[in-house]
Amino acid sequence: MTDVKQEAGDGQRKRRETGAAAAMTDWVAGARPSTATSGVTDNPFFEYLLRVADDRLVLGHRLSEWCGHGPILEEDIALANISLDLIGQASALLKLAGEIEGKGRSEDALAYFRDAIEFRNVQLVELPNGDFAATIVRQFLFDAWDVLVLERLTAANHESLAGIAAKALKEAKYHLRHTAEWVRMLGDGTAESHRRAQSALDYLWPYTAELFMADDIDRQALGDGVGVDVASIEPRWRQTVAQVMGEATLVIPKDGFSPRGGRIGRHTEHLGHMLAEMQSLARAHPGATW
Amino acid sequence: MTDVKQEAGDGQRKRRETGAAAAMTDWVAGARPSTATSGVTDNPFFEYLLRVADDRLVLGHRLSEWCGHGPILEEDIALANISLDLIGQASALLKLAGEIEGKGRSEDALAYFRDAIEFRNVQLVELPNGDFAATIVRQFLFDAWDVLVLERLTAANHESLAGIAAKALKEAKYHLRHTAEWVRMLGDGTAESHRRAQSALDYLWPYTAELFMADDIDRQALGDGVGVDVASIEPRWRQTVAQVMGEATLVIPKDGFSPRGGRIGRHTEHLGHMLAEMQSLARAHPGATW
Repeated sequence: MTDVKQEAGDGQRKRRETGAAAAMTDWVAGARPSTATSGVTDNPFFEYLLRVADDRLVLGHRLSEWCGHGPILEEDIALANISLDLIGQASALLKLAGEIEGKGRSEDALAYFRDAIEFRNVQLVELPNGDFAATIVRQFLFDAWDVLVLERLTAANHESLAGIAAKALKEAKYHLRHTAEWVRMLGDGTAESHRRAQSALDYLWPYTAELFMADDIDRQALGDGVGVDVASIEPRWRQTVAQVMGEATLVIPKDGFSPRGGRIGRHTEHLGHMLAEMQSLARAHPGATW
Repeated sequence: MTDVKQEAGDGQRKRRETGAAAAMTDWVAGARPSTATSGVTDNPFFEYLLRVADDRLVLGHRLSEWCGHGPILEEDIALANISLDLIGQASALLKLAGEIEGKGRSEDALAYFRDAIEFRNVQLVELPNGDFAATIVRQFLFDAWDVLVLERLTAANHESLAGIAAKALKEAKYHLRHTAEWVRMLGDGTAESHRRAQSALDYLWPYTAELFMADDIDRQALGDGVGVDVASIEPRWRQTVAQVMGEATLVIPKDGFSPRGGRIGRHTEHLGHMLAEMQSLARAHPGATW
């Protein structure tokens, strides 16, 4: 908690310099914000950390569903490693979120005892895995975004968050290299692998728009030096995606209707099913220490 | 394949010095041995490598079933890491086994296209996970054995095998530290955790005897400098187990009837169920390269 108070102090100094409202001071320390937000909690930094954490927890769990079920041992291990990295990142972020919230909730309490409506991940990551091509294409689309997000969070005005982001960035760069390579191989592979990869891209593309949407929570995090201007990273993301999809001979779909709402707890029915499975053991033994 | 031939040559020199039968010469290189074995294949080094590999593949898969289902994020990640280490070791060993066999079977072919009767793991590792205590107690019993086995295999008269063992040994030492600590916490924890750990130990104990049984395959591997004298490591294993169980206030059961047969393909019905799940995707798409 020490660095949280430290950061709150830093934030205060910074805001005084820029003349921002004094009410913002309490933001990082966890008090109620003065502006209305679209979140369900009254603590925007907590809310923001859940967003960053839940993308990873949910996607990490989805990937873990491949554990021991892939057709190639080496790739099984690679996907499981990515899954572990993401769940590890989520664990660190949820631990921090619990500290920021200040209600004594551990990372386990936040992972296993929130309902779907309290999850803050984008819908993209909660979709079922589909086939291997769909899993890989989604992971690539996420990784290309994630590297840009984490690059910015390493400069966060909060020591713990910046530290988590720095470690995660190294992992994300590896993930991106791995999944980009697979997208190229699948797209520019057999007729069947091309067809599957294109079909995955067509299905997943509308869900990527949510990665670049920002609301009050995001703007507040950004203003306080602990967030990311997602709109500003979109051009670079599109450039990376266009390049890899080009090499993979895959066609990026036209933008159209985009599902949204994950960030404020509106989820597909798939998340509920996933959580039921993920949380069943912990909920069957609440308070168990082993 | 180069080091295989190299090793075969080394083996030949060694055996001539000691006056062993010339028929043994072909052993490591993969020819039919002159002595009858209890294996179903005609290649004892291949058969031996399957034993070392399958313990890891099966146990690694069992552990992976915890992926995202544990009640504690941190422990979920720890078990998944152990699972990945074991599957990684299995992958390397099966790759080597495929080279030794010389019939063009990859590690994937060996992992996904053998039936239960062709698996060479001890029955201990194929048993269902049971509760967390049972998973941990089994893992500890295996790890304590595995460290001793791998220590000896690092001195194997075969460069690739020795290299795989050296890397695996580092991992196994970490696994043992982790699971021994958990056994102490569970055994010397709450009344419920003690009861569960003791119950797990009682159930699993008879299955440990198979870890120390040797047949012609094992003796041939040992004689050729690529095996382990399992009988000779039993006292140290019992010492480690007795010490940790003592600290955990758990009582080691009396030795009695011991299930056996895994090494020659006699398995519990649990392995078949596990393989059906593990192999389903690969078998649904035979020959798929992705």
